[in-house]
Amino acid sequence: MGFEKELREKTAWVQDAIEDFFPEEESAAFAGNLAKAMRYSLLAGGKRIRPLLLYESCLLHRADPDKAKPFMAAIEMIHTHSLIHDDLPALDNDGLRRGKPTSHMVFGEAGAILAGDALLNYAYETVLNGFPDSYEEDRALAPAGCTVVREVAADHMARRWRALRILAEKTGMHGMLGGQSVDVENDKRGNLTPDRPMLEYIYENKTAALLEAPLMIGAVLGGANPDEIRRMEIVGSRLGAAFQIRDDILDVTSTEEVLGKPVQSDLTNEKQTFVSLAGGVQEAEKLVRRLTDEAVGLLEEVPGDTAFMKQLIQKMALRSS
Amino acid sequence: MGFEKELREKTAWVQDAIEDFFPEEESAAFAGNLAKAMRYSLLAGGKRIRPLLLYESCLLHRADPDKAKPFMAAIEMIHTHSLIHDDLPALDNDGLRRGKPTSHMVFGEAGAILAGDALLNYAYETVLNGFPDSYEEDRALAPAGCTVVREVAADHMARRWRALRILAEKTGMHGMLGGQSVDVENDKRGNLTPDRPMLEYIYENKTAALLEAPLMIGAVLGGANPDEIRRMEIVGSRLGAAFQIRDDILDVTSTEEVLGKPVQSDLTNEKQTFVSLAGGVQEAEKLVRRLTDEAVGLLEEVPGDTAFMKQLIQKMALRSS
Repeated sequence: MGFEKELREKTAWVQDAIEDFFPEEESAAFAGNLAKAMRYSLLAGGKRIRPLLLYESCLLHRADPDKAKPFMAAIEMIHTHSLIHDDLPALDNDGLRRGKPTSHMVFGEAGAILAGDALLNYAYETVLNGFPDSYEEDRALAPAGCTVVREVAADHMARRWRALRILAEKTGMHGMLGGQSVDVENDKRGNLTPDRPMLEYIYENKTAALLEAPLMIGAVLGGANPDEIRRMEIVGSRLGAAFQIRDDILDVTSTEEVLGKPVQSDLTNEKQTFVSLAGGVQEAEKLVRRLTDEAVGLLEEVPGDTAFMKQLIQKMALRSS
Repeated sequence: MGFEKELREKTAWVQDAIEDFFPEEESAAFAGNLAKAMRYSLLAGGKRIRPLLLYESCLLHRADPDKAKPFMAAIEMIHTHSLIHDDLPALDNDGLRRGKPTSHMVFGEAGAILAGDALLNYAYETVLNGFPDSYEEDRALAPAGCTVVREVAADHMARRWRALRILAEKTGMHGMLGGQSVDVENDKRGNLTPDRPMLEYIYENKTAALLEAPLMIGAVLGGANPDEIRRMEIVGSRLGAAFQIRDDILDVTSTEEVLGKPVQSDLTNEKQTFVSLAGGVQEAEKLVRRLTDEAVGLLEEVPGDTAFMKQLIQKMALRSS
């Protein structure tokens, strides 16, 4: 099967997982508008890259992707939460996202703030409700007649705890929200020329952390050892940097029609990016290629069929929109 | 020991637990201002009622309060998250909270939005990091020589999963955030006269849900059965309604000096509350007493020393500030 066809099929599969775990508006009693606002942004399109990475990481680490569905839905909810709050007037003040009006344009500022909050929280609720709260049901996971059946069952519960911890850490003040905060503060302070360590901190946390999480979670659910988990973290880190620098490049080289959002905004704001830091578009391109090669190179060490993940990483880093 | 002295001592104990689980600003690398904003609101005072209820519920259900500390800190972080976002200009637009400038007055709107987000997320991070991610360490909990030691260990892990699930459910779109959303929407739509079912929905979710959670979590951690857990949920529900109606009463009868926030705001806005719905302050007082009696009555059925929790509930419902 060709890569593009496989990508379409897998994207459709994770899209179903996301929709499956999102409740109908009717379930929210009086709070139907909150559910509507959550759904509006969650299902507004998007490439579903994070759940796709989790899907692939499950396959590579011998975890069942079907059993990881709640984590796939959760990570996309957290990503959507961050987009809704990023777009708010007090932050980036963006009226368009993927060519559609942003949450606060449709539901008002209060509605968008609460929809973002509720999506962040519902990510945890989805995972916590997506698995049994006892180890009884896990016993079936152990091979028949296995004498260590209870250990196997309890170990699966422990893996989920560890996976959810990774999701929380990569989302929070030492991850995505920390990076987001530093980025926003720089803008507000008029500090548009952060130095390289600070820009790297922002890219690593604001963007990379939530790509590292799904790659790591797949490994954890499959029972990978700490070195294998760490390797997936580095793949996510390199991919995140490449992805974000590509964003900087597209802001200079693309058009509003292609991106579905305004371009040249960094230039207009004289904002420091890796394009200016690296010394131009060509140098930034080189950096993207180096980071992408590193991510792909690390996957060489992983046993199993890594072809799809490698192509996905290259597509993300070399994308034109 | 008198009630007030016991309350002071227990409050100091849970206050320590909250501070213990909050990281120093230095740990947040570049994101020091985010950590500062989180800490500003988390440690801005407050009665610490939710962690106190969890402490007491642990005692009543034979759970070790010391081991429940991460949950105590988490629930106070979630409560603080909701206060920060409630106070935002797009929501209640409050400049004062407990006599101090609110988060957005000090850190700006973007800073307050992100501090609220980060506190909500850090609640989950705190619980997930507050316990081992394997059942090995729990083996010590089982009696020496116990042949079912692994079951005991795995069961403790399962209880934590269940407890965290309750926290997420009571916080989210079917709990606090759902109630908050309906409350805000009514205000924005100019619908200041919600009918009784809607007002009850708002009180149950916006206020009661986060009082039910700690009462239930203590029971879950102690291994209570579903009926016992449900009983604590109802205690929290009655307490929450009484507490919120007391708020409505104080808005009519108290002063800004005593409350540390503006009074008569509901009257000025012609907003429907349980005071207007019940037909005046005296009728509302009767309702508070009935709800409080119900909560206290339910505690009669709980074995163990419930004296402190009963007094705490009465103090909360009959408070004058």
